[in-house]
Amino acid sequence: MVHSLWDTVLLVREKSPLVHNITNYVVMNNTANALLAIGASPIMAHAHHEVDEMVQICQSLVINIGTLDDYWVASMVQAAQRAQALGKPFVLDPVGAGATRYRDQTLDQLLVHKPTVIRGNASEIMALAKSQISKTKGVDSTAQSMEAIDAAYQLHHTYGSIVCISGATDIIVSNDARIEINNGDPLMTKVTGLGCTATAIIGACIAVEENTLHAAAAGVALLSIAGELAAKTANGPGSLQMQVLDKLYTITESEFKQHLNALTIA
Amino acid sequence: MVHSLWDTVLLVREKSPLVHNITNYVVMNNTANALLAIGASPIMAHAHHEVDEMVQICQSLVINIGTLDDYWVASMVQAAQRAQALGKPFVLDPVGAGATRYRDQTLDQLLVHKPTVIRGNASEIMALAKSQISKTKGVDSTAQSMEAIDAAYQLHHTYGSIVCISGATDIIVSNDARIEINNGDPLMTKVTGLGCTATAIIGACIAVEENTLHAAAAGVALLSIAGELAAKTANGPGSLQMQVLDKLYTITESEFKQHLNALTIA
Amino acid sequence: MVHSLWDTVLLVREKSPLVHNITNYVVMNNTANALLAIGASPIMAHAHHEVDEMVQICQSLVINIGTLDDYWVASMVQAAQRAQALGKPFVLDPVGAGATRYRDQTLDQLLVHKPTVIRGNASEIMALAKSQISKTKGVDSTAQSMEAIDAAYQLHHTYGSIVCISGATDIIVSNDARIEINNGDPLMTKVTGLGCTATAIIGACIAVEENTLHAAAAGVALLSIAGELAAKTANGPGSLQMQVLDKLYTITESEFKQHLNALTIA
Repeated sequence: MVHSLWDTVLLVREKSPLVHNITNYVVMNNTANALLAIGASPIMAHAHHEVDEMVQICQSLVINIGTLDDYWVASMVQAAQRAQALGKPFVLDPVGAGATRYRDQTLDQLLVHKPTVIRGNASEIMALAKSQISKTKGVDSTAQSMEAIDAAYQLHHTYGSIVCISGATDIIVSNDARIEINNGDPLMTKVTGLGCTATAIIGACIAVEENTLHAAAAGVALLSIAGELAAKTANGPGSLQMQVLDKLYTITESEFKQHLNALTIA
Repeated sequence: MVHSLWDTVLLVREKSPLVHNITNYVVMNNTANALLAIGASPIMAHAHHEVDEMVQICQSLVINIGTLDDYWVASMVQAAQRAQALGKPFVLDPVGAGATRYRDQTLDQLLVHKPTVIRGNASEIMALAKSQISKTKGVDSTAQSMEAIDAAYQLHHTYGSIVCISGATDIIVSNDARIEINNGDPLMTKVTGLGCTATAIIGACIAVEENTLHAAAAGVALLSIAGELAAKTANGPGSLQMQVLDKLYTITESEFKQHLNALTIA
Repeated sequence: MVHSLWDTVLLVREKSPLVHNITNYVVMNNTANALLAIGASPIMAHAHHEVDEMVQICQSLVINIGTLDDYWVASMVQAAQRAQALGKPFVLDPVGAGATRYRDQTLDQLLVHKPTVIRGNASEIMALAKSQISKTKGVDSTAQSMEAIDAAYQLHHTYGSIVCISGATDIIVSNDARIEINNGDPLMTKVTGLGCTATAIIGACIAVEENTLHAAAAGVALLSIAGELAAKTANGPGSLQMQVLDKLYTITESEFKQHLNALTIA
């Protein structure tokens, strides 16, 4: 598996997929830069008049509901619908799931289009699966539990999506196996939008790799290892945000394979 | 007072308040990162359908009119109204007050909800108090004058708000005292949105400290000292923007107290 | 010419022009910071209620269609119309021209107001001139060709605009001469929005320098040299983005003149 994850990183560099992003205002610059750093070509576009054409042009789609409103929700639903109709892969980031009814209603509209991958933190994944959980505390929870894994399996069975639970350990859930990745650094939780960046990178990986479980794991591993390496030299969250981009661009096969701490659970 | 300002910084780290931001596109990433760096939990959300719930969930609210339009103005007014009704503290950043009639009309709608704190530069504070001043030159004025302090007292008496005037000397005005803070560095005026960042940090401080004058002064002091320390090693405005985030995260009690240059005027 | 280009840089520092930007969400922070770094005063404002007043207050206008929708297109058209009526210079960045019909229709609406300068990559300039070209591959193309230069001349003859084609060699086209600038670094293509930053900087230059060809060339040269110098010490695209801002702020006359690699073709 170690072998195949790095292969996906190489495929992104080689094929430079066009990735269409409908994402939140807070992270747009960072996720565009992360996509460029790994060799992909980001497009940010949300106008109802052009969403269909953009989905058509691009190899994959990233939907992130961080700063939604009615216009943007309509863009997201339109794009998800179109991606499903065209058989193009798309990844959903359910930022703040469970925080408000509006977010949950929006997510219901998006889930019916069967995202290829869903990536969120434990509380978001549980909220998405409508688990009996206490109200989410914001959008930066790192809580991890068997309950979140159960929720992920439930989402997988209902929508067919590969589900990534971000946290100290990242868990990627599919039908017949799950992959756990123990990379990253706690300082990464002090930089806004690194979860959204993971989602964007997964968006590039699913554009080039048909094995979605491996594509999602490769994306998660790439960012976690880059963050782990960047944290070694960062002086705080500001320099970490910058150095993650540097490392995403410069990371080598030996750095990746030497640091990857992944486990497949059949 | 030196003692109590640092205490507020510690309280933010300890309580990690949820801070709801309705702010401008230019600074969202920076202010979210600044809030994370000081230990708070930022939420950016503006949809009319969820603003009420977000205000309810959060411990404080930040309203910044930098890149307003009708939809966002309605979000801001709705949130301010809700915060006032719930007795939650909120801070207003009147970016570009006086520059256009639309900004002034919008500010009138927000002021009636009696912001806990107002933070702006001298020209914005004077425009807000409808002082007889010449048209503001943009949003980055550093002009300071007794006229601005008079305007701040006037705003305080009308709306009950603590008023912060940003500049080479930051002045925080309340009824019975004002605090002047002589920290910071001129290079900070070459980074966009550090004023907005001060506002966001104040938003976190008023969530945890009931003495609003001290909370506002703590927020202003924290950013000014972090900026002053960061400027010592920055090579220009790009590295300053990054290093301010690092310093907000790493600043220690001794750094804070050693550099704080504050004066209370009864 | 070397002399006059640096003079424009100095004029920006000296006059600190107010530059009104209606630009995309991805780059707003970067372009505001770049404008501050070179000594200009950026304003970002798009509300229909205030666009006219903002154009009036400012010395120039930057229009960038990167993340357009109906509201923003109306803002852009209103601002362009107003700038034309007032005789204020404005620069147009046709991000993604040719990618969707909506972008092309929007550009048609903007071109009739005769932008002072148009800046894009080769595929965007060709799409704008409706050349018979293959569908653009996203927004980061660096393709260069005589076809793009022909397209630029065509645009110049139709709309009177100075046209900048960004690429490994930047080409600035006017009626009687064109200027080619061979500065920059390939790593700059891995940072999102440096093209948009060039456009914003041109916006500041046309505010202070009446010779539009020279103003545009000065803006292009300033960013390209800053990027070239920053790339020497950058560890990747993250640090390049930061160091470009530092260098825009610190660049000296001797650095500028020593590195400028420009050619005027009569």
